[in-house]
Amino acid sequence: MTDRHLERIGRAVEEGTARDLDALVISPSPDLVYLTGYDPILFERPTLLILRPDAEPALLVPELERALAAASPVGERLRLIAWSDASDPYEAAASLLEGADRIAVADRMWAMHVLGLQRRLSGATFSSAGPVLAALRSVKDADELDALRRAGRAADETFRQILSMPFRGRTEEAVAGDLADLLVRTGHDRADFTIVASGPNGASPHHEPGGRTVLPGDAVVMDFGGELAGYFSDTTRTVVVERAPEGFEEAYAVVREAQEAAVAAVGPGVEAQQVDRAARSVVESAGLGERFIHRTGHGIGLEVHEHPYLVEGSRTILEPGMTFSVEPGVYLQGRFGIRIEDIVAVTTEGVERLNRSSRDLQIVA
Amino acid sequence: MTDRHLERIGRAVEEGTARDLDALVISPSPDLVYLTGYDPILFERPTLLILRPDAEPALLVPELERALAAASPVGERLRLIAWSDASDPYEAAASLLEGADRIAVADRMWAMHVLGLQRRLSGATFSSAGPVLAALRSVKDADELDALRRAGRAADETFRQILSMPFRGRTEEAVAGDLADLLVRTGHDRADFTIVASGPNGASPHHEPGGRTVLPGDAVVMDFGGELAGYFSDTTRTVVVERAPEGFEEAYAVVREAQEAAVAAVGPGVEAQQVDRAARSVVESAGLGERFIHRTGHGIGLEVHEHPYLVEGSRTILEPGMTFSVEPGVYLQGRFGIRIEDIVAVTTEGVERLNRSSRDLQIVA
Repeated sequence: MTDRHLERIGRAVEEGTARDLDALVISPSPDLVYLTGYDPILFERPTLLILRPDAEPALLVPELERALAAASPVGERLRLIAWSDASDPYEAAASLLEGADRIAVADRMWAMHVLGLQRRLSGATFSSAGPVLAALRSVKDADELDALRRAGRAADETFRQILSMPFRGRTEEAVAGDLADLLVRTGHDRADFTIVASGPNGASPHHEPGGRTVLPGDAVVMDFGGELAGYFSDTTRTVVVERAPEGFEEAYAVVREAQEAAVAAVGPGVEAQQVDRAARSVVESAGLGERFIHRTGHGIGLEVHEHPYLVEGSRTILEPGMTFSVEPGVYLQGRFGIRIEDIVAVTTEGVERLNRSSRDLQIVA
Repeated sequence: MTDRHLERIGRAVEEGTARDLDALVISPSPDLVYLTGYDPILFERPTLLILRPDAEPALLVPELERALAAASPVGERLRLIAWSDASDPYEAAASLLEGADRIAVADRMWAMHVLGLQRRLSGATFSSAGPVLAALRSVKDADELDALRRAGRAADETFRQILSMPFRGRTEEAVAGDLADLLVRTGHDRADFTIVASGPNGASPHHEPGGRTVLPGDAVVMDFGGELAGYFSDTTRTVVVERAPEGFEEAYAVVREAQEAAVAAVGPGVEAQQVDRAARSVVESAGLGERFIHRTGHGIGLEVHEHPYLVEGSRTILEPGMTFSVEPGVYLQGRFGIRIEDIVAVTTEGVERLNRSSRDLQIVA
């Protein structure tokens, strides 16, 4: 836990106060990592960071993890309070939350803990701490941007190298295995996900790579990312094996244009939904609107998906330092799918692409 | 999704009805795997299985995962209802939950989803579906017991092989790496955790193995487990390097006796807290009660920690087919820790140990 963490905690409390919240309760999650650097294994025993404007930050920990927390950097900076296995942790939390009427809890807190707190604090109202954390986490500082840039470069290099590997006659699983290896070899600490969806499987955006053999004339959607210094890459390219299937090239041109239009729409002061609309209007004009079955993008940082979301209805104003995916796609049942995804950062002037792989259609062997 | 899953769903609904619940809402988690076999990646987009006594089971899925769910075995057996990114998924859930006053949600559901449901269903009361699922999941069937036995044997073989590897002069991290490799080589699908806590680090039960070099005269706590066919192993042994530190052998004998006493207390009809008391009374009689800073054990199955918990205050009645750890320990700050852990199964006659590694003190080099 560093001065940066203490500063973030201070800002979280300020944001909470500005939203009329009396307390924030943060369980182990990317939120806790962001605020403290502490990242214990997630178990049924609650660990809860309790932040109130009028009190010192406190970390409620299971008795058997008191030594772990004390030895970690949070031990020097946070007040540690332990609860033992034969006691009720929610009672301990409730005594730290006495007098708090409006309590916000971390978005990823497990239901058992939310319900435990609600049972002990039946007079309080509970809401999501998501907006408070989003206000902080969605705008990246220079070090965070640097980690995301490095992850983006490693993802680009992964794509460059996979292009020279064989596709035809191999299974999706085998290609996905190559992607995972490349993600690590190009600099990620670990591979996180490797979607390889060939032929008709491409019409399922979250397809799990399986035993299907890649054939000549297949389109192949590859959506992959890894973790680097705690931050993630996430990029998608759609390639064809030897030749494009019928109707593919026209649709590819539409998705490519939609992605260009959406990236061009990114800039400070723009509403998140405007980016979605920029992509969607291109796809709709081409008559493929019904085939674009997801939002245009999601924030990325300590999580692969985080605020802001580029979706109709989101009036979040884009600010310099925000990072997110721009990934329109179309999905033609029984035939193929197409998605093109890059991570971008909002800058004071407009936009910076963190992925630079060519978006020209690539033909693989 | 098999007939077994349908039968489990039927029993979950019955258990819910017996507890006066109008609906169960299950998010992606081991609960969902248990009930359906479906295990999508956990994201901010909710996937919710909705079970009501008076309706067909329904699976609410994000639009872009409709194809994924439809192609999976749940697609043939469950009614799939998709919500799109620009819509409110909780509104869709609320319409499936119309008229339900008492709703129970999965213990691991994310707070954002619990709060989203509560917002849309403000007249309903929410509770944990944990007791319903525990009633089903804590009693293992023959196939589950078989998987747990195989995982236990693989963990035993891991321990046997680590004993002949060098400890002295190597870091905790290096020994932990060996344990992870052995877990896979002995038959696990993957290693899940490998605590190696040497010398004074042993006094922190959940110590993260680090750069400390293991020295002659250290006690070393090794707590490790892996996943095999979806089920987990979890065993702990404490060894000494060349020689035992001062005061260690007496304390080891106490923990060993406590573990024997607790295992001997296991049997059908016994309250879970009786097993905890059996271990604790041995440790307390030896004057070390204050150093035994955690419960005696936890259930194990699709999760490393699940019901039943062997803890003071738990009146859960043990039944044949229940599986859990028995793991008393003592932790002497600045000196060493000792823990001995085996998985056991309750049988109609008494108890079966799923770990058979020797509990005699082992000396390593």
